[in-house]
Amino acid sequence: MSNIHEECGVFGIFAPTKQNVAHTAYYALFALQHRGQESAGIVVNNDGVFSAFKDEGLVNDIFSEDVLERLGEGNMAIGHVRYSTTGGGGRENAQPIVVNHLKGNMALAHNGNLVNSYELRCELENTGAIFHTTSDTEVISYIITKERLTSGSIEAAVLRAVDRMKGAFSLVVMSPSKLIALRDPHGFRPLCYGVRDDGAYAVASETCALDSIGFTPIREIEPGEMLVFTKNGVTSDRSHCGGEKALCVFEFLYVARPDSVIEGHSVHEARKQAGRFLAKQFKIDADIVVGVPDSGLDAAYGYALESGIPYGIGFIKNKYIGRTFIAPGQEAREDLVRIKLNVLGSAIRGKRVILVDDSIVRGTTSRRIVTLLRDAGATEVHMLSSAPKFLNPCYYGTDIDSRENLIACHHSTEEIAEIIGADSVGYLDLDKVAFLTGGDGTGLCKACFDGQYPTETPAVGKKSRFERWDRPISENPKFKE
Amino acid sequence: MSNIHEECGVFGIFAPTKQNVAHTAYYALFALQHRGQESAGIVVNNDGVFSAFKDEGLVNDIFSEDVLERLGEGNMAIGHVRYSTTGGGGRENAQPIVVNHLKGNMALAHNGNLVNSYELRCELENTGAIFHTTSDTEVISYIITKERLTSGSIEAAVLRAVDRMKGAFSLVVMSPSKLIALRDPHGFRPLCYGVRDDGAYAVASETCALDSIGFTPIREIEPGEMLVFTKNGVTSDRSHCGGEKALCVFEFLYVARPDSVIEGHSVHEARKQAGRFLAKQFKIDADIVVGVPDSGLDAAYGYALESGIPYGIGFIKNKYIGRTFIAPGQEAREDLVRIKLNVLGSAIRGKRVILVDDSIVRGTTSRRIVTLLRDAGATEVHMLSSAPKFLNPCYYGTDIDSRENLIACHHSTEEIAEIIGADSVGYLDLDKVAFLTGGDGTGLCKACFDGQYPTETPAVGKKSRFERWDRPISENPKFKE
Amino acid sequence: MSNIHEECGVFGIFAPTKQNVAHTAYYALFALQHRGQESAGIVVNNDGVFSAFKDEGLVNDIFSEDVLERLGEGNMAIGHVRYSTTGGGGRENAQPIVVNHLKGNMALAHNGNLVNSYELRCELENTGAIFHTTSDTEVISYIITKERLTSGSIEAAVLRAVDRMKGAFSLVVMSPSKLIALRDPHGFRPLCYGVRDDGAYAVASETCALDSIGFTPIREIEPGEMLVFTKNGVTSDRSHCGGEKALCVFEFLYVARPDSVIEGHSVHEARKQAGRFLAKQFKIDADIVVGVPDSGLDAAYGYALESGIPYGIGFIKNKYIGRTFIAPGQEAREDLVRIKLNVLGSAIRGKRVILVDDSIVRGTTSRRIVTLLRDAGATEVHMLSSAPKFLNPCYYGTDIDSRENLIACHHSTEEIAEIIGADSVGYLDLDKVAFLTGGDGTGLCKACFDGQYPTETPAVGKKSRFERWDRPISENPKFKE
Amino acid sequence: MSNIHEECGVFGIFAPTKQNVAHTAYYALFALQHRGQESAGIVVNNDGVFSAFKDEGLVNDIFSEDVLERLGEGNMAIGHVRYSTTGGGGRENAQPIVVNHLKGNMALAHNGNLVNSYELRCELENTGAIFHTTSDTEVISYIITKERLTSGSIEAAVLRAVDRMKGAFSLVVMSPSKLIALRDPHGFRPLCYGVRDDGAYAVASETCALDSIGFTPIREIEPGEMLVFTKNGVTSDRSHCGGEKALCVFEFLYVARPDSVIEGHSVHEARKQAGRFLAKQFKIDADIVVGVPDSGLDAAYGYALESGIPYGIGFIKNKYIGRTFIAPGQEAREDLVRIKLNVLGSAIRGKRVILVDDSIVRGTTSRRIVTLLRDAGATEVHMLSSAPKFLNPCYYGTDIDSRENLIACHHSTEEIAEIIGADSVGYLDLDKVAFLTGGDGTGLCKACFDGQYPTETPAVGKKSRFERWDRPISENPKFKE
Repeated sequence: MSNIHEECGVFGIFAPTKQNVAHTAYYALFALQHRGQESAGIVVNNDGVFSAFKDEGLVNDIFSEDVLERLGEGNMAIGHVRYSTTGGGGRENAQPIVVNHLKGNMALAHNGNLVNSYELRCELENTGAIFHTTSDTEVISYIITKERLTSGSIEAAVLRAVDRMKGAFSLVVMSPSKLIALRDPHGFRPLCYGVRDDGAYAVASETCALDSIGFTPIREIEPGEMLVFTKNGVTSDRSHCGGEKALCVFEFLYVARPDSVIEGHSVHEARKQAGRFLAKQFKIDADIVVGVPDSGLDAAYGYALESGIPYGIGFIKNKYIGRTFIAPGQEAREDLVRIKLNVLGSAIRGKRVILVDDSIVRGTTSRRIVTLLRDAGATEVHMLSSAPKFLNPCYYGTDIDSRENLIACHHSTEEIAEIIGADSVGYLDLDKVAFLTGGDGTGLCKACFDGQYPTETPAVGKKSRFERWDRPISENPKFKE
Repeated sequence: MSNIHEECGVFGIFAPTKQNVAHTAYYALFALQHRGQESAGIVVNNDGVFSAFKDEGLVNDIFSEDVLERLGEGNMAIGHVRYSTTGGGGRENAQPIVVNHLKGNMALAHNGNLVNSYELRCELENTGAIFHTTSDTEVISYIITKERLTSGSIEAAVLRAVDRMKGAFSLVVMSPSKLIALRDPHGFRPLCYGVRDDGAYAVASETCALDSIGFTPIREIEPGEMLVFTKNGVTSDRSHCGGEKALCVFEFLYVARPDSVIEGHSVHEARKQAGRFLAKQFKIDADIVVGVPDSGLDAAYGYALESGIPYGIGFIKNKYIGRTFIAPGQEAREDLVRIKLNVLGSAIRGKRVILVDDSIVRGTTSRRIVTLLRDAGATEVHMLSSAPKFLNPCYYGTDIDSRENLIACHHSTEEIAEIIGADSVGYLDLDKVAFLTGGDGTGLCKACFDGQYPTETPAVGKKSRFERWDRPISENPKFKE
Repeated sequence: MSNIHEECGVFGIFAPTKQNVAHTAYYALFALQHRGQESAGIVVNNDGVFSAFKDEGLVNDIFSEDVLERLGEGNMAIGHVRYSTTGGGGRENAQPIVVNHLKGNMALAHNGNLVNSYELRCELENTGAIFHTTSDTEVISYIITKERLTSGSIEAAVLRAVDRMKGAFSLVVMSPSKLIALRDPHGFRPLCYGVRDDGAYAVASETCALDSIGFTPIREIEPGEMLVFTKNGVTSDRSHCGGEKALCVFEFLYVARPDSVIEGHSVHEARKQAGRFLAKQFKIDADIVVGVPDSGLDAAYGYALESGIPYGIGFIKNKYIGRTFIAPGQEAREDLVRIKLNVLGSAIRGKRVILVDDSIVRGTTSRRIVTLLRDAGATEVHMLSSAPKFLNPCYYGTDIDSRENLIACHHSTEEIAEIIGADSVGYLDLDKVAFLTGGDGTGLCKACFDGQYPTETPAVGKKSRFERWDRPISENPKFKE
Repeated sequence: MSNIHEECGVFGIFAPTKQNVAHTAYYALFALQHRGQESAGIVVNNDGVFSAFKDEGLVNDIFSEDVLERLGEGNMAIGHVRYSTTGGGGRENAQPIVVNHLKGNMALAHNGNLVNSYELRCELENTGAIFHTTSDTEVISYIITKERLTSGSIEAAVLRAVDRMKGAFSLVVMSPSKLIALRDPHGFRPLCYGVRDDGAYAVASETCALDSIGFTPIREIEPGEMLVFTKNGVTSDRSHCGGEKALCVFEFLYVARPDSVIEGHSVHEARKQAGRFLAKQFKIDADIVVGVPDSGLDAAYGYALESGIPYGIGFIKNKYIGRTFIAPGQEAREDLVRIKLNVLGSAIRGKRVILVDDSIVRGTTSRRIVTLLRDAGATEVHMLSSAPKFLNPCYYGTDIDSRENLIACHHSTEEIAEIIGADSVGYLDLDKVAFLTGGDGTGLCKACFDGQYPTETPAVGKKSRFERWDRPISENPKFKE
């Protein structure tokens, strides 16, 4: 329903003995499903022989028992879930990527976005490289492979590749005998690891994946840190650590699952804190505070705690909707909000309602939800967004709608209230965002709100980047052949 | 996760003009999906010509755009979702049933259970009837057809059939030109109807289905009442009204969606009331009240309101699980609770927790959830069930586990606490159940709790009922041929 | 490509011990696939407990290993393949039919068509019968069930049912402990049986099915004969034998597989004989005789043998076409013949060709095939049909196109030659048909050619028969409700 | 049934206007299906924008109307069918390959095998190349891309790439604006082209594909020739022509469809000629000559023509088998020949039979077919192979079984007769093979029979070639990391 596309999720496991690592990866990806619903993949490493399967769809649809059986046992596996985009992607861009190179096999799963991938791609193409996809992950695998030619080990090659890559990358790399996990020096995207009683290690985008498979989370991998898992244990390289940290604050506000803990901070608590801040900002005389399921519930709860206004259950969400839902009929699409959510009339009727959501992007969904409340007899509806206004594009892996669709780029808060039919509208203050996780306000990337980018921004726009193959010849100014 | 099988759901629409009634039925069934996940079906009536499609699976899986297109337009449709049973059923038993008889077509969708279906079936068989299914619905269609032979109209036949049938039946019947809806004289199962701006009428098991398709609920069909929708409008027959009402109280506690309103009572409010009652019964010194998602949330909320102990969000449920989830690996099945639910550690750690669920059936799920809380650092866990103890079988359409699996039939409350690992366990008092909906305590069936059945009970046990065809010859004492 | 719809095929097995009868039925149905491509089904009988699966599609698509596994083992099974019709049918009409009645289970598979099914249906409806399908098989199961009420055994009931049914029926009936096979007294449709080394018996529409599963064919079941297979062996009842035989001659010319033997006559030899007769009728000066694959090959071969003109391989058929072929694009459909068949240019170029096919129905396919030959350089093309002209509808289970599409009903032979672009056209003489199997010309039904029906013909036309439920109310003169 | 794996098939179309080239490619691939059943793919070029779809399975299963619709219209398309291997391959190795490089898009479809692909791959890897597949096609696309960096056009790059590649390659390359087709200088694999009335050109592995889509074949592309199709017409480059020709003779004997014409020679006639040669070699006193369907029919026909012994139809093949056939049950697999073929008893009984097949590979299938004939009453069975004895591996794209399974490598002709149960066995004389197409015996590769390889043979064996990624570390002598 929202127009912010979610991130990718990555996973890796290194087990001391041969076992059903495909099952473990499956359950971990299922826990990371909220980070990407377009496609998913698992690569199993059985003593150096790789078996892979990836496809479009949800984890549960792709990995039948039959497919998992064919993936077989092993002592390592990596996995990936990929976010959903409207037109693009397809099966070809599914991850992990498996490549063969001079030294053997390599599989990669990546969460993030490079800001210099266009330059790297051009440089590689000039030496004769061919690409099967348009993803950064293939660029990264090339860079690592090139460095591998003159490096003594895969981990040495990865370290040298880090010097070449700018932007966001939480990466899991699997060689025949090693599992490598690393985070870019800014640490834009989360990546944590944990251990199980039998000595197996796992890395995952979020702790909720470790919880679901019975691994005890150890800690976040540090920005710039590389962990190497081998049969001899774990080693850490921090040669790229020490730079300016810039963890995406939107992970706390929207992307991550509330039960995850990122860099020691509970996502649920951060959202509750956003609600508390909102309560301090907006002192509204109302009867009930309700959140939009599921993403607005935590902040609504925080608002209620801080304000003393009762927290209420205002909506029931159809629990069968969390999947590829077929919505036949054009007219029907108009009413998809109604299919998904229903108001608890008895709780709302005659009440002045504070409605909390995680964001207001285009405004269309917000308008429909406000209408639902009014139809159910709410006398007032005050809409609060636990995220500040989106005003800038993100270059680090969150696919926020283009500016033309962002309602906050074109309208004042008062206009937005009128558009969505609310009595008032409020956004979290930008200067509060830095304090959601209880810290001193440093180390978070808030570029989508304030435009302060921790890195250079891409030199070439997204559209012109792939014009050589995505544009018709007749419209392509550079086509010469 | 629970071991109580849910009910069926029925739907019917009568529109003044030809339109895409298949789409409307689809969305309504999607809203009733919680009442049955085994199979679903839709029959469209286009000026007397019936098109039907039914299959095993979820509504969203069965009805692709292609299938809905093939069903086509019409001015009437009926639909059904069927509950999930372990072994039985299959495609053959999916509803609605479509039959041809002397006077033309008839389609039926049924929610409930007859207590005299065995006797009726025997009687019919003695006149040469053949059955394609083992469902009561086929028995009902026979009874109506027989009466139709000597009745002037389909509605007259239905009325006469009501005299023959004992037990629970909320029924939707479609003839070439009429839509008929009726509830048995006790009104065991809910059935309401509503209207849309264009004059179309709809009947549904619950109001949430009417809400989702933009129909305004009018009222519950009365116990014993029959509504007939034709192009000339709606007529009501109350010749079977006036008996003792016996609406299933378990609809309020478990089956229905919280946003539904049954006989004027909000399901959400009834559950909240159960929580309030629990708070009066069990005054526990604790830090937080959490509900088991999704079914325990309302009662937990009520407990918190009444007790003053803060309501908390204790669990995050994986929102992709509400579907046919593949759980590969035997060992994995053990941990399915962990796959489905994760504790919000920050909210639970070091707390004394009151855990509220809608019921405690076998105890196995409860034990795992209590363990999750303890592992997350809860110092105390007190488990409360918003339903009283299940002690008796239900003959009216709720498929509660056989007594041997019902933990309350074999253990004291203290023993149950020990088994599931809770510091204490409490059940809603039986004498409170009648007052959940704010009334005077009459008109509800509570037989599964107190054994007071409003009707005779079936003379022949379920197992021996179909022994003629479900048992091997070698074990069948009655086989003679 | 042809416009004659093929027949159904039936199968049954009675084994002395529990075994994988589902597999055997699967292979047998696969061998009978040419008799029906719309739907298929298998019912397994495991000591009186029936397991069934049926669906639309080809045998090989319906019965995955998983489905066969679920059907499980047993000591009996019956199976059915159903022909393809344009609009009708669907999953509901798939066979075998499984019904429950007073005495237990019964499963039926039927090949043929009753001429009095409308009357029987009306009679049953008048006693309150309901029908789930529009097939004769459901009527038959009712008739048997009615008789069973007052008969001492299932076989006694079947015998009494035979007195009620008029028309074509080759029937396989399975009760909990018995397998019954019978042919109508005229013996319109074939039905044979065989035995395997281990003492298992099987019945099948054609011997090719017995061959494929390693059973030795014993003989055709006689017209009017009923065989009953029990654990005590086989018994035969001939109380309905002795009437006028009327085996469908079109089984020899078109329906059956050439490797089958019907009533002792090889289908291949009968077709060869048709070719020989054609050679005597039409002495054409030509260079080569070619058959249209696959159905015209045998007759072409016979023509060549008799005439001395060399037999040639003239076409190559794409062997992947024998299945649900997707033909996208309207323009493409025009050229489906070209997709299916290609001329062997080197064999045809500069030659005077005698082209033999099994029939000329609409003429459209014939015209395209003649064009293919001309394009490949044939100097003359003489088209011969090994069937006489179709001039009359069939009421016994062969779904020949309605008269308006039958080219021979509207055009002289000369006109047909011009229409299809052939130098000449010839049909097998009607008086030769009776002698194809080498006999004295009696005992064959040739009604589609000569209009001599061995039974009464249906009193009510096909269209008006089901007007009560297949016609819109607004066009249905009899609708009263 | 045979153990020789078939080749790949390629196709390309260049149309003057935008049209449904996906449909045309679909029908062409369907006609080439016999060259590969493992996977298939189509790439459509719409004014420089490529849309691709490929998957495992048969053409008709992969390309639903929906998939073809999504491929959309264009003015160019290429397609590929890939042969079936036991374990390997899978979706990753499906073709065509689509790559992005410095100059834009490129798609390739390849039939053949390079003998120096290992050397090329190593060279590329040493410069940092990464590979997603183990196929030669990816190596070829790299070589072309590398040359493209310093070439003025794609066709110049392709020509320079030809100098680097040794072995068999019939190649179709598509750039944004050009379609290029070329054959290696020996011309191991066929590749022809044709034209349609509207000026569209098509290239295909065999003429049967052109026939099926209504294109008039022009001629074979010459060994070493490159054709470039642009909007300005066709140009031919013959700079690599003039070497020693070596067309695979096995294309005539086994691979190609009989209705295809390769280098002006009818495949059907070549097989007939093989039969004629056999008749001269083996003068057997017999009553009938029958071929094993479908591949032995032409040669049997030639034998009959030459010997004067009557040609007979001896077997009926189940026409539904030409597809992914499920064969459940281990014991059943034993009898798959019986499921596929049935003897025409009336034609065989009491006869001395000459049985002709295209080859005798392992001998197991031959043994079962001989048994079928004996069981049907053949008094003598003389088995003839229209191919000489297979004694050597093929390095040019035909995947003949390894020597250990080739019966002719281990047994004398007499022993083979005894093993398969024939009265005698005969193979076509090696020195006749060169004359099958009526020429002077030059220009054909017969290496699999005589061991005379027209090129160097691969330096590195197949097994050790990919040991870096296909072998477990623990068994991989070269693993160092």
